Amino acid sequence: MSELIEKLNWRYATKRMNGQVVPAETLDNILQAINLAPSSVGLQPYNVLVIGNKDVKEKIYNIANKQPQILESSHVLVFAAWEKVTAESIAKYIQLIASTRDIRVESLSAFHNSINGGILSRTEEVNFQWAARQAYIGLGHALVAAATEQVDATPMEGFDAAALDELLGLKEKGLRSVVIMTLGYRDNQNDPLVRAKKVRRPHEEFFIKI
Amino acid sequence: MSELIEKLNWRYATKRMNGQVVPAETLDNILQAINLAPSSVGLQPYNVLVIGNKDVKEKIYNIANKQPQILESSHVLVFAAWEKVTAESIAKYIQLIASTRDIRVESLSAFHNSINGGILSRTEEVNFQWAARQAYIGLGHALVAAATEQVDATPMEGFDAAALDELLGLKEKGLRSVVIMTLGYRDNQNDPLVRAKKVRRPHEEFFIKI
Repeated sequence: MSELIEKLNWRYATKRMNGQVVPAETLDNILQAINLAPSSVGLQPYNVLVIGNKDVKEKIYNIANKQPQILESSHVLVFAAWEKVTAESIAKYIQLIASTRDIRVESLSAFHNSINGGILSRTEEVNFQWAARQAYIGLGHALVAAATEQVDATPMEGFDAAALDELLGLKEKGLRSVVIMTLGYRDNQNDPLVRAKKVRRPHEEFFIKI
Repeated sequence: MSELIEKLNWRYATKRMNGQVVPAETLDNILQAINLAPSSVGLQPYNVLVIGNKDVKEKIYNIANKQPQILESSHVLVFAAWEKVTAESIAKYIQLIASTRDIRVESLSAFHNSINGGILSRTEEVNFQWAARQAYIGLGHALVAAATEQVDATPMEGFDAAALDELLGLKEKGLRSVVIMTLGYRDNQNDPLVRAKKVRRPHEEFFIKI
């Protein structure tokens, strides 16, 4: 078994955490892994809120089915997708490519036009759903990165998204929360799932080989 | 820099591959990482097609903007979300938990009812979008796993989904393709992006710390 598979078997959806804080450097590795996640055309149409503040976590707890790991976590990450994808945000991205690679913006005009054509012709709702999917790639990266750092991570969709957007002022930022994740350390005494066997669909049913 | 971050910096959206085949054991590690990806309530409402067949890859190439890495890849993975989530598939999952953990199905009835209540009250389209997002967590796992195995991987949304569903007989299986990924090895000579600097939004703009 590879080391990665061992780590992924170690991880589980932690229901109780012990309050221990994730060291800054470790947290930073997890965040870097999210930022390094690829996205469609490279746009990264989402943001990630990193919440260590106790009072804010308490408010999130109240709008997320009072799941105890929110209070017991070190940090709560909120993945928030862009509500709209605008011509300005695409132009800004093209500018970022040009400055990163030290090339002229004009040399990217075919790429720029093709992104504009593909994205701006779609409805806002389609683009939001698309942006949300990109955020889930980031979530996938976060989960693996946390596991390799031996940090527990619990993804959660069970929260009042409108209330969370209100709490964090996401609407003003052009964002909508799509999924959250707690980071911390499992409470070996109190988490009933800590020793539960992992349940996964058998490979022969999950994979179709052609 | 952690080893994982090094690997994630190594990876990029490979545009040209060299045709080399990914060894079976390496491929299996990547597939295992996908199967180990968490999903909402643990249902894993998607399947992954693993396509090494040359003829099938050629047909995919023709409906995916003739992107050369499809032909030059070792395998093409197709992530296909469940078109509908049925009471039967939920019941089957509950049965899987019971048999995996050697507990009685009846002991899971509260959980079973809560999943039924949450999922079966939503429209098919909402459930499909939700299933697609879960598939993207799997995609995120696949990307990181490939990078740790030093296998190149290119996720792609640019394909004719209806044509791909038709080609692979997905409708009959209750599936709809949502994203594909090529696995293989970069062609150092012919890929113009092989030495391009990675472009990512700056941390201070991508992350919002609270």
